[in-house]
Amino acid sequence: MSVIKPQIPKGFRDFLPAQNIIRQGIIDVVRTTFETFGFEPLGTPCIEYAETLEGKYGEEGERLIYKFEDRGGRNVALRYDLTIPLCRVISLYPEIVKPFKCYQIAPVWRADKPQKGRYREFYQCDIDIIGSDSMMADAELIVIIYRVLSKLGFKDFTIRINNRKLLNALAIKAGITDAEGAAFLRTLDKLDKIGTEGVRSELTDKGFTNTAIDNVLGIFNSEWQERTIPLDEIKELIKGIAIGEQGVNELLIIQKALKAQTVPEDCYCFDLTLARGLDYYTGPVFETVIKTPKVGSITGGGRYDNLIGLFSKTPFPATGTSFGLERLVAVAEEMEKDARTNTRTQVLVAFFDEALMDETLKIAQMMRNEGLRTEVYFAAEKLKKQLSYAAQKGIPLVVLLGPDEIAGGTVMLRNMLIGRQDNVSREDLVNKIREQL
Amino acid sequence: MSVIKPQIPKGFRDFLPAQNIIRQGIIDVVRTTFETFGFEPLGTPCIEYAETLEGKYGEEGERLIYKFEDRGGRNVALRYDLTIPLCRVISLYPEIVKPFKCYQIAPVWRADKPQKGRYREFYQCDIDIIGSDSMMADAELIVIIYRVLSKLGFKDFTIRINNRKLLNALAIKAGITDAEGAAFLRTLDKLDKIGTEGVRSELTDKGFTNTAIDNVLGIFNSEWQERTIPLDEIKELIKGIAIGEQGVNELLIIQKALKAQTVPEDCYCFDLTLARGLDYYTGPVFETVIKTPKVGSITGGGRYDNLIGLFSKTPFPATGTSFGLERLVAVAEEMEKDARTNTRTQVLVAFFDEALMDETLKIAQMMRNEGLRTEVYFAAEKLKKQLSYAAQKGIPLVVLLGPDEIAGGTVMLRNMLIGRQDNVSREDLVNKIREQL
Repeated sequence: MSVIKPQIPKGFRDFLPAQNIIRQGIIDVVRTTFETFGFEPLGTPCIEYAETLEGKYGEEGERLIYKFEDRGGRNVALRYDLTIPLCRVISLYPEIVKPFKCYQIAPVWRADKPQKGRYREFYQCDIDIIGSDSMMADAELIVIIYRVLSKLGFKDFTIRINNRKLLNALAIKAGITDAEGAAFLRTLDKLDKIGTEGVRSELTDKGFTNTAIDNVLGIFNSEWQERTIPLDEIKELIKGIAIGEQGVNELLIIQKALKAQTVPEDCYCFDLTLARGLDYYTGPVFETVIKTPKVGSITGGGRYDNLIGLFSKTPFPATGTSFGLERLVAVAEEMEKDARTNTRTQVLVAFFDEALMDETLKIAQMMRNEGLRTEVYFAAEKLKKQLSYAAQKGIPLVVLLGPDEIAGGTVMLRNMLIGRQDNVSREDLVNKIREQL
Repeated sequence: MSVIKPQIPKGFRDFLPAQNIIRQGIIDVVRTTFETFGFEPLGTPCIEYAETLEGKYGEEGERLIYKFEDRGGRNVALRYDLTIPLCRVISLYPEIVKPFKCYQIAPVWRADKPQKGRYREFYQCDIDIIGSDSMMADAELIVIIYRVLSKLGFKDFTIRINNRKLLNALAIKAGITDAEGAAFLRTLDKLDKIGTEGVRSELTDKGFTNTAIDNVLGIFNSEWQERTIPLDEIKELIKGIAIGEQGVNELLIIQKALKAQTVPEDCYCFDLTLARGLDYYTGPVFETVIKTPKVGSITGGGRYDNLIGLFSKTPFPATGTSFGLERLVAVAEEMEKDARTNTRTQVLVAFFDEALMDETLKIAQMMRNEGLRTEVYFAAEKLKKQLSYAAQKGIPLVVLLGPDEIAGGTVMLRNMLIGRQDNVSREDLVNKIREQL
């Protein structure tokens, strides 16, 4: 048989241990934090009926859905995000007790053009609260974002918070009709990327009047930092517009809940320009940006009170947020670039002689029983080769067990990082290893 | 917009928390055990080029591969198992240090007819050792199988062990040619399912002579338990056939290594009838059966020294085993059927009054900082409703914090399981909770 060229499809990635250890570490922090707040694990299949996904992600999103025919000729698709499958789950199992707090950590697929930092298969970490209209739920998501990022050691991140109701009020104030609202918000959302002039020209192209554009841009015509407007000023701004007043009151409750849960004030801001692209948001929206490295937003989410109604006659209010695992990993890799490791293994037990297999395996078993991550070298090769293997892998400690040590009931413990080697009694071995890890 | 009927594609499953908590618990045990033996996490994409998978799984397997066209018109496929992607990885990244010990826990897809216990998307947990021809590697996989199943509390399981080299020797003894060997082994592998007479008739259909069939079945013509043949008897049986002698010697080393690592002798057996369906095994093969519930084999694996050679001119010896997560879950669910839970949440903090939001959130935060999994009820509804929510979900403890408690610096701690309620000082709260969990 001829050799097949080993290839990975474009836009897809293998995660070798060096990177996967970082990914797993982040997932563990994310998951533990979610569970500390009472979220339960939910799993959905990677494949959904195409009609479940169609018509949910806008024109551009629609084109990126991976669709194909199932064996029975039905149209199926790889899931595009974790939110729509969740809405399907909520509708399919009315027995689920509400409010339902759940998390999902899983891959999603988009048939996008592969480019730096953009992949066709990537992981999302979602938390959602279904069946509560309380602003305490939205605030809790923001608290969790803060706690996850702090635990990961991230610095200089800002959670931007806004409310779609405020944006609707601003649109009303500017004379923009309900029908035009979505198109208006999609352009406004690009303020960060294309600037005030870019927004003006795109709104003009979309047919908005100069007066409407001036009315809105008057509010935003300043630098990013200065766009953070205190809530009482916003309240003044939308006075008399009912939906706007409701929006501010919601943000005031969120602010109070964030303070009670000691989220530092320099970690979040109320930012009127944040729109979030998707059409389905109905209330508070929030995303997190980080100064370095430049990776775009690392979380995004908001309230989507009407989305479950697409699948069910008994809709539920809902709010949720998604952590982009790929971007969290990019930040963590930047932080840990000098401390990367290929292994989580703590000890290598060297192997001197086939005749010593029993003793060698027993020592390894003793360490494993103590929870030490322990590897046995499988061939009685030259010690130099075995030590070089430990060094290449980055295993910090090597246990050497030759005939002399076995006769004396001891082992040699070699620290690969400082090059020291000690004769240690078997009873002390585990403690000595723990001291050096 | 009309309501879309929420449906899940046939053969696919949602994992609601009650089941997913069991799944996650099993995955955690599996993963921790793998890491204790020095295995590193590996990740590969769900999608591979079709040609990477084609021609590897036999005729029947081939038909079950989910194939479709990628955006660029290239044929891609959902991965069918975790072994072939691993072989691709080994060939694609020659820089990986060998021996390479890695694990993967991930879904695979097969376009099979859905039926009870058989799904189109299911999870495998694989461990593999690439680049070692030592029997210590094969033995280690068996030790890990024993340790994982013991930690999960499984009883009455047997790890069946055989060696393809022994089966080849038996075939030679029976006068079966090399070319016929694979067809012969595939039929022999069905002995458990179709019995001696079934095997006889299938071998006859395949054109084997009566003499050859009698030679082989003479050895196996007995009940399952009696087929367990001591290694020294096997040695006698294949005496003079070089490949058979090598096979026995390999199993003797495995036996020695299992004893050194204290795997109880009633947990494994050497079973000459075990063939394992796949063509690619070259040495020791092993699988685990459990008496109840009847779920088929819960692990399967073996040595595949030639498989990486399909992708690379520098092949490596390799051995590995796969745990079928779905079957592990089925066994665990059977064991825990009276102890299932919908939640991992330990404490619900009741919410009495919007005016007490601050204090309520602060108490919750204090408990979370101590690592307690804590949920706050988000609406100031009647206490009865809040307690009923805790009961429905199965949250064992509720913290009640009304104006009286706040004034007195205490809280009420209610144990939902025994119905007791205690007034507890804030300082004692975490300890009292820990006592009752």
